[in-house]
Amino acid sequence: MISSALTPHPSERAAWRRRFLAVRDQTTALAASLSPEDQVIQSMTDASPTKWHLAHTAWFFETFILKDHAEGYSPFDPDYAYLFNSYYEAVGERHPRPQRGLLSRPSSEEVLTYRSHVDAAMATLIEEASPKTWDMIHPLIELGLNHEQQHQELILMDIKHAFSINPLLPAYAPAMKRDPAPAPPLEWVAFPGGLYEIGHDGEGFAFDNEGPRHRVWLEPFALANRLTTNADYLAFIDDGGYQRPEFWLSDGWAARQSQGWEAPLYWLTRDGRREIFTLAGPRPLDLSEPVCHVSYYEADAFANWTGRRLAREEEWEAAASRNPTPPDPDGGSRLHPSAAADAGLSQMFGECWQWTSSAYSAYPGFRAAKGAIGEYNGKFMSNQFVLRGAAAVTPASHARMTYRNFFPPAARWAFSGIRLASDDV
Amino acid sequence: MISSALTPHPSERAAWRRRFLAVRDQTTALAASLSPEDQVIQSMTDASPTKWHLAHTAWFFETFILKDHAEGYSPFDPDYAYLFNSYYEAVGERHPRPQRGLLSRPSSEEVLTYRSHVDAAMATLIEEASPKTWDMIHPLIELGLNHEQQHQELILMDIKHAFSINPLLPAYAPAMKRDPAPAPPLEWVAFPGGLYEIGHDGEGFAFDNEGPRHRVWLEPFALANRLTTNADYLAFIDDGGYQRPEFWLSDGWAARQSQGWEAPLYWLTRDGRREIFTLAGPRPLDLSEPVCHVSYYEADAFANWTGRRLAREEEWEAAASRNPTPPDPDGGSRLHPSAAADAGLSQMFGECWQWTSSAYSAYPGFRAAKGAIGEYNGKFMSNQFVLRGAAAVTPASHARMTYRNFFPPAARWAFSGIRLASDDV
Amino acid sequence: MISSALTPHPSERAAWRRRFLAVRDQTTALAASLSPEDQVIQSMTDASPTKWHLAHTAWFFETFILKDHAEGYSPFDPDYAYLFNSYYEAVGERHPRPQRGLLSRPSSEEVLTYRSHVDAAMATLIEEASPKTWDMIHPLIELGLNHEQQHQELILMDIKHAFSINPLLPAYAPAMKRDPAPAPPLEWVAFPGGLYEIGHDGEGFAFDNEGPRHRVWLEPFALANRLTTNADYLAFIDDGGYQRPEFWLSDGWAARQSQGWEAPLYWLTRDGRREIFTLAGPRPLDLSEPVCHVSYYEADAFANWTGRRLAREEEWEAAASRNPTPPDPDGGSRLHPSAAADAGLSQMFGECWQWTSSAYSAYPGFRAAKGAIGEYNGKFMSNQFVLRGAAAVTPASHARMTYRNFFPPAARWAFSGIRLASDDV
Amino acid sequence: MISSALTPHPSERAAWRRRFLAVRDQTTALAASLSPEDQVIQSMTDASPTKWHLAHTAWFFETFILKDHAEGYSPFDPDYAYLFNSYYEAVGERHPRPQRGLLSRPSSEEVLTYRSHVDAAMATLIEEASPKTWDMIHPLIELGLNHEQQHQELILMDIKHAFSINPLLPAYAPAMKRDPAPAPPLEWVAFPGGLYEIGHDGEGFAFDNEGPRHRVWLEPFALANRLTTNADYLAFIDDGGYQRPEFWLSDGWAARQSQGWEAPLYWLTRDGRREIFTLAGPRPLDLSEPVCHVSYYEADAFANWTGRRLAREEEWEAAASRNPTPPDPDGGSRLHPSAAADAGLSQMFGECWQWTSSAYSAYPGFRAAKGAIGEYNGKFMSNQFVLRGAAAVTPASHARMTYRNFFPPAARWAFSGIRLASDDV
Repeated sequence: MISSALTPHPSERAAWRRRFLAVRDQTTALAASLSPEDQVIQSMTDASPTKWHLAHTAWFFETFILKDHAEGYSPFDPDYAYLFNSYYEAVGERHPRPQRGLLSRPSSEEVLTYRSHVDAAMATLIEEASPKTWDMIHPLIELGLNHEQQHQELILMDIKHAFSINPLLPAYAPAMKRDPAPAPPLEWVAFPGGLYEIGHDGEGFAFDNEGPRHRVWLEPFALANRLTTNADYLAFIDDGGYQRPEFWLSDGWAARQSQGWEAPLYWLTRDGRREIFTLAGPRPLDLSEPVCHVSYYEADAFANWTGRRLAREEEWEAAASRNPTPPDPDGGSRLHPSAAADAGLSQMFGECWQWTSSAYSAYPGFRAAKGAIGEYNGKFMSNQFVLRGAAAVTPASHARMTYRNFFPPAARWAFSGIRLASDDV
Repeated sequence: MISSALTPHPSERAAWRRRFLAVRDQTTALAASLSPEDQVIQSMTDASPTKWHLAHTAWFFETFILKDHAEGYSPFDPDYAYLFNSYYEAVGERHPRPQRGLLSRPSSEEVLTYRSHVDAAMATLIEEASPKTWDMIHPLIELGLNHEQQHQELILMDIKHAFSINPLLPAYAPAMKRDPAPAPPLEWVAFPGGLYEIGHDGEGFAFDNEGPRHRVWLEPFALANRLTTNADYLAFIDDGGYQRPEFWLSDGWAARQSQGWEAPLYWLTRDGRREIFTLAGPRPLDLSEPVCHVSYYEADAFANWTGRRLAREEEWEAAASRNPTPPDPDGGSRLHPSAAADAGLSQMFGECWQWTSSAYSAYPGFRAAKGAIGEYNGKFMSNQFVLRGAAAVTPASHARMTYRNFFPPAARWAFSGIRLASDDV
Repeated sequence: MISSALTPHPSERAAWRRRFLAVRDQTTALAASLSPEDQVIQSMTDASPTKWHLAHTAWFFETFILKDHAEGYSPFDPDYAYLFNSYYEAVGERHPRPQRGLLSRPSSEEVLTYRSHVDAAMATLIEEASPKTWDMIHPLIELGLNHEQQHQELILMDIKHAFSINPLLPAYAPAMKRDPAPAPPLEWVAFPGGLYEIGHDGEGFAFDNEGPRHRVWLEPFALANRLTTNADYLAFIDDGGYQRPEFWLSDGWAARQSQGWEAPLYWLTRDGRREIFTLAGPRPLDLSEPVCHVSYYEADAFANWTGRRLAREEEWEAAASRNPTPPDPDGGSRLHPSAAADAGLSQMFGECWQWTSSAYSAYPGFRAAKGAIGEYNGKFMSNQFVLRGAAAVTPASHARMTYRNFFPPAARWAFSGIRLASDDV
Repeated sequence: MISSALTPHPSERAAWRRRFLAVRDQTTALAASLSPEDQVIQSMTDASPTKWHLAHTAWFFETFILKDHAEGYSPFDPDYAYLFNSYYEAVGERHPRPQRGLLSRPSSEEVLTYRSHVDAAMATLIEEASPKTWDMIHPLIELGLNHEQQHQELILMDIKHAFSINPLLPAYAPAMKRDPAPAPPLEWVAFPGGLYEIGHDGEGFAFDNEGPRHRVWLEPFALANRLTTNADYLAFIDDGGYQRPEFWLSDGWAARQSQGWEAPLYWLTRDGRREIFTLAGPRPLDLSEPVCHVSYYEADAFANWTGRRLAREEEWEAAASRNPTPPDPDGGSRLHPSAAADAGLSQMFGECWQWTSSAYSAYPGFRAAKGAIGEYNGKFMSNQFVLRGAAAVTPASHARMTYRNFFPPAARWAFSGIRLASDDV
C-alpha cells in the first residue's frame, strides 16, 4: 500500500524518519493550546478525549510495530495495552469507550512522555531495522501515519463538540481572518454514462477499503459545481424543511424528532440572530460558506426538497478523477470551510466531507486483511454511509481521490456537508 | 405496475372482483384458527397483532381508494383512520406502533365487520367504477392486494414470535408431515461477469423500489446451489462462531453481545436436545432443513467463517433470471422451509428469504411516487439490507424475480436464511 | 389473624364455605362484562391483565393451601406455578411481570375452568379437613380471601388504565346515576396530643403489617373534615401549581417534568372543556367530587400550596378510631368517588385512599412471617408511602381502621386522593 | 441555628473571620494533591468533580450573602450563577448535573481565583457589616460553613469513586499507618422504653431538618456496642447472603440483581485475594475494620440475616445522647474507618455513617424556610433513608448528635456502615 510523491521510497530511511516525526509532531501541536483539563473530557460516547487520541496513536505504533519488530523494546506501561486499545478485538480486552473521559490518570504529561518513548523507539527502528524487518514494517508505518492523520482530524472534531456544549463557548483557536464573498451560483457539471474504473489502483498508500479497483456502470449524471451553502440550506429551513416528513427518510424523521433537530449542529440563535459555533468560537452565520455538520438524514432531506439527490460514491469519484483540481497535498489545514471561489467543479477537497447516497460496503473482491489490522475498516460495513472528498480540518496530505470516509447517518459532528447530484443531464 | 398471468386484464372487472375477494379471504383465513386473545397481543415493537393486520389492510383500501373514488362511501368508523394507519405521515396522525397490542377494542369481531364493509364497497366499486375511475384505481387495487399479501406473511411471522415467547409454546397449526431426507452437497453454480440488466421492466406488477430496470457491471461470481442448512450452521456454532469476534461486523458483535445470541432465533435446547420452535410448535432440529431466522449479522459472520461471502442483490437476480425454475405462482404456501431436493440452483424461492450484502437503496433513476403512496418503500432506504427470493410463508403468487425485501440487519423474526456466494469461479 | 363480624367462627365450616365462594364469585363477576381481548392486555408494567388476576388468585389457594393440605390434590396445570406466581421468591421462578400481557394462552375460558377446579377442591377441603388441618389452613383461607379482595380492586384499577389509553375511551360499566351537590366547606377537626395506641390488636383479620399494636406520641393536630375536591385542586392548577417547583419535592418535580404532568391522571381536555375519564367512560369534571388519581408528589405539592400538610398515618388512624363512622362492611362498592354529604369528619372510607406523609415501614416489633407468606408485605418497605382509608372500588368488607395500603410516590392509577392535615389546632 | 463552643459569639467578628477562612482553606487543601485533570472528571451522575465542589461552595456565599448584602459586590463571572448552582430552583436555571464533568473551562486555576475573590469579599463583609446586616448574615455564614464542610466530605467520597473506576487504581493519599487489632466481641447495650425528646433544641447550629425538638415514644431496645465488621459481613457473604432473596427488600433484590452486587463497593478480588480500595489505594481487606460502603439494602439484608434489625433514627439518637462519648470536635479527619477499640457503645461518630431503618421525613412541626434556602433539606424528603453518626471523612467539628444525613437506599459511595439493633433487651 505504498509509495507516492508524499511517501518516501522505502529505501530512504532518513526521509521516512523525518516524515514519521513530522506527522507525529503535528498531532502533539494540535493539542498544544489545550489545557490538561481540556484534554481529559469526553463530551459524548462518539467522541474521545484529546489525551486519549494522543495516547492511542502511540499505542498503535507500539502494538503493531514495536512489540513485534523492535528487538528489546520495553512497553512504556503494561496497563496502556488495555487503556488505549480502541476497538481491536484481536489484541485483547480494552477500556470501555464511554469511560474514556474518566481517566484523569495517566496525566497529559505522562502521555506526552509515552509519545516520546514510542517516537524514540520508532526513530531508531526506522533507521536500524534489517532489510527484512523493514519490508514487513514500512507498510505498517505508512498505515500508522495515515491512522495518525485520521486522529488529527478527530482531535479537532471532538474538541469542537466538547467546547460547543460548554456554556462558556470557549474557542480552540483565535478568530480566523475571513474575506466573505458571495458563493458562485449553482451550476451543473455533466458526466456521461458508461463503464468507469473506480477504487485505488495500488499506486501509493490507500486504506484496504479503497480497493480493489473495479468496473462500474454509471448512467449519465451531473454534479453541482459547488457545495450547498448556508444560504441554500436556510431556504430549506425557512420552507419548513424540518417540519415536513415528506422529505425525510423514516429513520431520519425519527432522529429529527427524538433529537429535536431544527438546524445543523453548531447553529445557534442568540439575541434573535443566527450564529454559528466554530473552532474560533461563535460568530455570525456566513451565508456563503458551505453548510457543514449536517447528518446524512438532513443532507438527504435537503436534496429531496430541491428535487435532486445526493451522488453515489462512484459518481463522485468518477467526477473527481476527471477534474483538473486534485487535492493539494501542500495545502495547510484550516479550521472551518470557506465559500467557493472557483468556477467549475470546485470544493471537492478541503472544505466539507460530502455525504453520498452509498451505504458503506465492500468493493467487489475486497477481503479484509488477516489479524488485528483487518479490523481497521471492514468490520464497520453496516449502518454507515460513505462521505467523499476531505474537509478543512483534514490534513492536506491525507486527502485522496479514492478515499472512503464513513459515518452513521445520524452523525453530525464530522465536518460533513452536501453536494447535490442530478439525473437531469 | 400492471397485468401479468396473475393479474387479470383491467377490462375484466369480474375477474378482478374474484381475485380481490380471494386475496382478501386468504387473510381472514389465516386468522381463523386464532382466538380473539391471540389476535390482540403484540410480542415486540417490530411485530403487530393479527387483528391490527386485519384492520390495517382494510384501512389501506378504505384510505387510498374508497375515500377518494367510491361515491357516497361512508367510512366504517372515523376513529379507524387514526388507529390503523401504519406509517403514512401524509394521511395524518396515527396510533403509536408500540401500543398496538393494547387495543382490546375494537374487538376481532368488529374488525371482521370492518373488513366485510370494505370488501362490499370495493366489490361494488370494482364492478361499477366508470372507465376513468377504473384507470385511476386499478393500479391502486393491485398495490393493495400486494400489500395484503405482505401482511399475510407478517401475520405468520408475528404470531410465530408471539407464541414463541409464551412458556406454553402453543402451536399455530397441526404438525406438518415431513419426509426428512439429506440435503444435497454444496456445489457452486458459476456465472460470467459482464453487463447485466437488473430490476423490473414494467410488465406486470412490481413495487416501485424494483425499478427502474438498469444496467450493472458484474464480475464473475458463483452462487451456492442450495441454502445453508442447519447442519452447515451447527458446524459454525460448534467451531465457536458465536464467541469469535473476528467473523463479525462490529455492530453485529455488539448485537450478539447485548442480546445474548448463541444460535438462530427459535432454536431451543430442552433436556439437552436441540429443538426448533415452528408454527406447529417445538420439534427436534432437522439438520437438512435450511437454517432460518438468522440476522444479517449472523449470515455475514457465517459467510466469513466459511471464507465465502453473501451475494450482492444484483448477482442474485442475475442468477435467478438465468435459472430454469421461476417462482411457482400456484404453489401453496407452507409454514416452514424444507430441505433441498433438486440438483442445480435450487431453493431460490419458497423456502427462506436470502440475505444479500446489499444495503437497501434506490436504483438509479428511482423517484418515490408523490403523496402518501410514495411512503411505501422509499423512506426506508437506510439501515436495512435487501433479502431476495421468497419464503415458505410467502404467498406463492407474491414471489417475483425482482422482488426486494428488506429488514434491519439485527432482525431475526422474518423467515431469513443464507445462500453463500463466491468470487472463486 | 381472625374472627370478626365478617369472619365466620372457625368451627362453622358451612359458613366459611359460603363466604369463600361468595368472595371468589365476586372476582369472576367483575370480569364478566369484559371480552377475552379486554382481559389479556396489560397497559403498563405496574398493571396486570384481568385474566392474570383471575388466575393468580386461584394460584394463591392452590399454592399455599391445596398443594400442602388437600390430600390427593392434583394441580390443574403444572405450568401455572410458573405463569401465575406474582413475586414469591420462595416458591420458585416466575414469568416476568412486564410480559403478562403477552399470554394469549391459557385462554380466559381455561382460566375460568382453573378457578372452578380450585374452588371445588377448596370447598371440599373446607368441609372435610380434619380439625388439625383446619387449624392450619383457616388463617390461610382468610388471608387468601383478603388477597382476593385486593385483586378485585386491582382489576378495576388496571382495566381503567387500560381503557384510558385506548383512543376509543371505552366504558367498563354504564354511566352511573349521580346527584351532583356542592361539597361542604372545608373545616378542621381537632385532636389532642398525647400517647395513642396504633395498629391492629389481633381481633379479627389484619395483614401482618398492621401490627403489632403499639404506642405513639402525637402532638395536637387537625384533619380536614372532607377530602380535597376537584374544585380545590383546580385552584392549585390555576395558580400555576404544576409550574412552581417551590411546592414540590425534588423527586416529585423531576417526575412532573419527565412525565409531563399538568393535572391528575384521567383528567382530559376535549373541545376546550375539562373532562374526566371514569370506569363509565368520559364525562364532564364534577368539581364537588374528591380529586382522585393523584400521586403522592402531587398530594404533597398541593398540601404545601395550601400551607398545610398531609397527615401522618398514626394521626389518620387516631382520628379514624375516634370517629363515629367506621367503614360500612355492607356497603356496596362503587366505581367512582362521590362528593361529601355529611358534616363532621367524613369520607374516611369508601371514596379515595388518602396519601399520608408516612413512608411505609415496619411497626415496632414487626417481624415478617417465615416462608413465602412472609413476602406478602414486609419486603416492600422501601420507597413507598402509606395510604389510609379505602376507595369507592374497594370491597366494602375489606376496609379497616388499621389498613395500610402503600404505593410508590409517583403512582397515580390507584384511587388515591388527598385529605389535608394541620398543626394549627 | 447559632452559637456553640465551635461557633464564635456573633459579636466576635475577628473570630468569625478566622473561622470562615480556616474552613474555606480546608476545602482548598483537600484538592491540593489533585491534578487539574483529577479535578474535572465526574465518574457518575451522583458524584461531582472536585473543581465543581470548589466553585459551588464559593457560589453559595456569593449567591446567598454577597449579592444581597455586600454593597458594591461585583460577581466574579456572571456565567457562574448558571454553572455552579446545584439544585436551587428559586435562584434560576442551572447547568445539568450529569454534565458537570464536561466543563474543562473555567480551569481549576480560575476556580481558585474565584474562591479568593469570594473569600476576600466575605472577609471584608464579616468585619465591616453593619450590626443590622450582621444579624441577617451571620446565620447564613454559619449555614455556608456547614455546607462547605458537607462538600469537604463529598470531595473525598467523589474522588474515591472516580479513582476506583480508573484501572490504574490511583491513590489520593499515601498509605495510612494502621495498627490492626481484633475488634471487640459484639455485645448489646440496652435502653429502656419511654418518652424521649429527640431533635435539635436550638442551642448552636443545626440544619433545619434536625428540628423541632419533639417527643417520641420508644419501646425498650438495644444497640450493638460496635459497628458491623468486615469479618461479620464476610460471614453473611459466605452464607450466600447475596444469593438468598429471603433476606432482601424487593427493591433491594432488584438492585442487587441489576447491578450485580456480590460484596460492598470497593471490595476487590485480585489474584484470588480479598482486597479493599481505599483513598490510599488498594490493600488487603482488614477483617476487624467496620464494613463500609454498603447500601441500605445490603445493611437491611445483613440485619435480617442476623435475625436483628437496624435502629430507628430516634433510637440511635436516644442512645447517643445517653452515651458518655460525644463527637470530638478537635479530632482530625481520617480517610478510612478503623476497628473499634473501646468497650461500651463505641464508634458512634468518626468511623462510618450508620444506616437507620427510618425513611427521611419531616419531624412534627417542621416547616422548610421560605425562599431558596428552604430547598436545602426539605425537598429531599422522599425515597431516602437517614444515616446517623459521622464518618472518618467527616470534618470532626461537623459531627453532631442530632445530625440527619440521608441517601437513597441504593447509594454506596458514602462511607456508610451498619450498626445492629434489637428488640430483645
